[in-house]
Amino acid sequence: MTQLLDALRETLGPAHVLSGSDAAAFLTDQHGRLTGNALAVVRPATTEQVAQVVRLCRDHRAPLVPQGGNTGLMGGATPDAGGQAVLLSLGRLNQVLAIDTDNDTITVESGCVLATVQQAAFDAGRLFPLSLGSEGSCTIGGNLGTNAGGTQVLRYGNMRELTLGLEVVTAEGKIWHGLRGLRKDNTGYALRDLYIGSEGTLGIITAATLKMFPLPAAQHTALLAFPCIVSAVAFLSQARAGFGAALTAFELLSDTVLKLIAQHLPEQKIPLESLAGPWYALIELSDSEGEAHARERFEAVVGQAFEDGLVVDATIAESLQQSQGLWRLRHEALGEAQRRDGRNIKHDVSVPISRIPDFLRATAAALEARFPGVRPVAFGHLGDGNLHYNVAHAPGQSVTALIAQEDAIHEVVHDSVFAHGGSISAEHGIGQLKRDVLPRYKSEVELDLMRRLKQALDPLGLLNPGKVLAA
Amino acid sequence: MTQLLDALRETLGPAHVLSGSDAAAFLTDQHGRLTGNALAVVRPATTEQVAQVVRLCRDHRAPLVPQGGNTGLMGGATPDAGGQAVLLSLGRLNQVLAIDTDNDTITVESGCVLATVQQAAFDAGRLFPLSLGSEGSCTIGGNLGTNAGGTQVLRYGNMRELTLGLEVVTAEGKIWHGLRGLRKDNTGYALRDLYIGSEGTLGIITAATLKMFPLPAAQHTALLAFPCIVSAVAFLSQARAGFGAALTAFELLSDTVLKLIAQHLPEQKIPLESLAGPWYALIELSDSEGEAHARERFEAVVGQAFEDGLVVDATIAESLQQSQGLWRLRHEALGEAQRRDGRNIKHDVSVPISRIPDFLRATAAALEARFPGVRPVAFGHLGDGNLHYNVAHAPGQSVTALIAQEDAIHEVVHDSVFAHGGSISAEHGIGQLKRDVLPRYKSEVELDLMRRLKQALDPLGLLNPGKVLAA
Repeated sequence: MTQLLDALRETLGPAHVLSGSDAAAFLTDQHGRLTGNALAVVRPATTEQVAQVVRLCRDHRAPLVPQGGNTGLMGGATPDAGGQAVLLSLGRLNQVLAIDTDNDTITVESGCVLATVQQAAFDAGRLFPLSLGSEGSCTIGGNLGTNAGGTQVLRYGNMRELTLGLEVVTAEGKIWHGLRGLRKDNTGYALRDLYIGSEGTLGIITAATLKMFPLPAAQHTALLAFPCIVSAVAFLSQARAGFGAALTAFELLSDTVLKLIAQHLPEQKIPLESLAGPWYALIELSDSEGEAHARERFEAVVGQAFEDGLVVDATIAESLQQSQGLWRLRHEALGEAQRRDGRNIKHDVSVPISRIPDFLRATAAALEARFPGVRPVAFGHLGDGNLHYNVAHAPGQSVTALIAQEDAIHEVVHDSVFAHGGSISAEHGIGQLKRDVLPRYKSEVELDLMRRLKQALDPLGLLNPGKVLAA
Repeated sequence: MTQLLDALRETLGPAHVLSGSDAAAFLTDQHGRLTGNALAVVRPATTEQVAQVVRLCRDHRAPLVPQGGNTGLMGGATPDAGGQAVLLSLGRLNQVLAIDTDNDTITVESGCVLATVQQAAFDAGRLFPLSLGSEGSCTIGGNLGTNAGGTQVLRYGNMRELTLGLEVVTAEGKIWHGLRGLRKDNTGYALRDLYIGSEGTLGIITAATLKMFPLPAAQHTALLAFPCIVSAVAFLSQARAGFGAALTAFELLSDTVLKLIAQHLPEQKIPLESLAGPWYALIELSDSEGEAHARERFEAVVGQAFEDGLVVDATIAESLQQSQGLWRLRHEALGEAQRRDGRNIKHDVSVPISRIPDFLRATAAALEARFPGVRPVAFGHLGDGNLHYNVAHAPGQSVTALIAQEDAIHEVVHDSVFAHGGSISAEHGIGQLKRDVLPRYKSEVELDLMRRLKQALDPLGLLNPGKVLAA
């Protein structure tokens, strides 16, 4: 392997081939749950250098683990403990390559931080709508590898729907120049879509051409309370019809969530008359006309829902500050309150929206039967059927006792998801952490098709081995 | 092959294994340009029967050509002349399987006619937005196989973006049960997207779960005139910002098109003061509020465009009848006027919207240099960068003379498309008619990846051989 290291140093310059303590930060995932080893961490600066690294690793049969901002939650960017792999950090491929406002596209290298791309679009008078908690450090390459979702999927789609073209380095170290800015192109198989969501196991994405949208003229945020989950689902349907595409976020929160925040973060304002919900939603309207119109629509649609009894309380943010306060509930207070409350077992699942009420009822019952006292903490993107369904310890239960039950709790939740026609990973991917439970919920037909695709595009099995599928 | 025929008859019943004159209609494409032969035309009624047919054909190494409504324009559903293939007509798989209004999804078998699915959604108070000329006879399976586009892609996306789940029979005759109604599901490779657009060469799609949308409260259609193509592109950008997602169609028409209609169909009303354009657009607004709001927005956005000099004439339809009259210009009169004018050489291309003006200028110049007097007849979905760029005969040129130049004209247009970063098939697919020109415009890297995917999913090469890729 000295030969490979020498060749990598010669290709990239010694400063960009890291080992020892320089490499450490790349080898542990962001939650500190997983640590791997690597022969080296390499930091190419161009697509051609990425291709050279791939060819060198291939010549030496060294596995490659691509990594963006290292914010993944499933261990997809952390190598195994073997120390044979080369960790390929894309962070130096961080240029915005082109902005085309007439075509509403932005072309960026895959190591660009998401917030940088949002800002570049904004500076051009456009919106790049992907928005998620780690946007300040996650990269476009990671967003593409995991087909990231977030809070605006309801209106704009996942990363897959936001992407028009890709540039990819293949397992052979060749470059596929697919940076097309086309909304219609039916000239062959959907390579773009196959690479998106493949978590670096089929090729290395080095750049992408992404869609931009007009900036909204006004945005309004509101917090609503529902008498039951069925009402929340019914209101979502009315809101989609009444607001049209102006409805850009519909974030569900349970009373447990708001009560946890009230308990642990008393300084955080929750602008509702009572917390007798038991279900709440943070909604966002993005209006193409302006403040007055957004307000008028809000009053019309939510007013009707009040009359219909679907909504029992509502607060609309009266200023940018109030709006930010409401979003802080969702983005920061929620996580912080959970941390202060103790450990919890996290899930990222989706079911058809129509089955959310049944899913919530059945899952809570199944958990209570098997683990009496544990507390479901459910929130998420109702408009996408995507719940972050966390399970907090029972009163008095120790962290150790909860952790000992982790796999069993996962299984109860995931079995319920499966029984309701859902997905055990809505937006975080499979990585290494869900790899071994996947066969419980995917048919052998589908797994076999996936293995054949992996074999077709990476016959030596060197691209991020052991992620998504067993190596 | 008698053995195979016997087995097919036994499986499907003799009435559903056609040959001779009963089979003829399935063996010629809708324009009557291509005629193939087949061992038999088979008409299974269920997914299980499709799987049985695939297994029988596999056992006998007989190629399979899937077909929906037989409305494709690239010969993708027409077998070759050899007569060894079995033509698999999906027309009897025509059930709407489920409608879920809370999840906004409709699940249908792939032989359902598009208009049937539109109607079923409408009856449930929802919109299924795919809309194209052959909607009365094309099927969902064909729409999926070619990733169909049409007039509302600007707002709702292509068939790919409208699809959540698929059921597919693999080349081995196994059934992949992927009919998921999920807007977020990141549990492995994008099989769904790989099958969509693969024109039946990777698997046989038997059913799909599709997205529905709220019905608009009001729709307005208008015909606008622009002083130049640059103004049309600039107005599109303003319209996207000003109308937001209410802008559901933006169909470009050249003065040549409207003058052809005026010449050959004098009874067709064109409600503009003059035809001094030289560019026009038919736009549609789908408003979630109602008539008054739609009208007010139209006046605001188009009024501003008048002031800016981007628009020089505009007519808004004052009734459903007037609206239908405008759409008749686009959908019927346009084709009929071209037919009366003589033959023309058709193209279905896309380029980035920002490059449309350059593309039009450069292509017209290249054609004039090589084929003096031929007349570009350009129209299409400007909002998607998709032009149907037809080339009509020069004054006095015979049909025979034009046809003799067909391949050379294609090459001039497609070379120009390629030079402008575009696609030689925006929404019609490759089929057999564009298969052999594809390598001129696609890199060997991409073609090699496509061949590897074909080999991985159809190792015996029995699924629609010779379509998209050479057999």
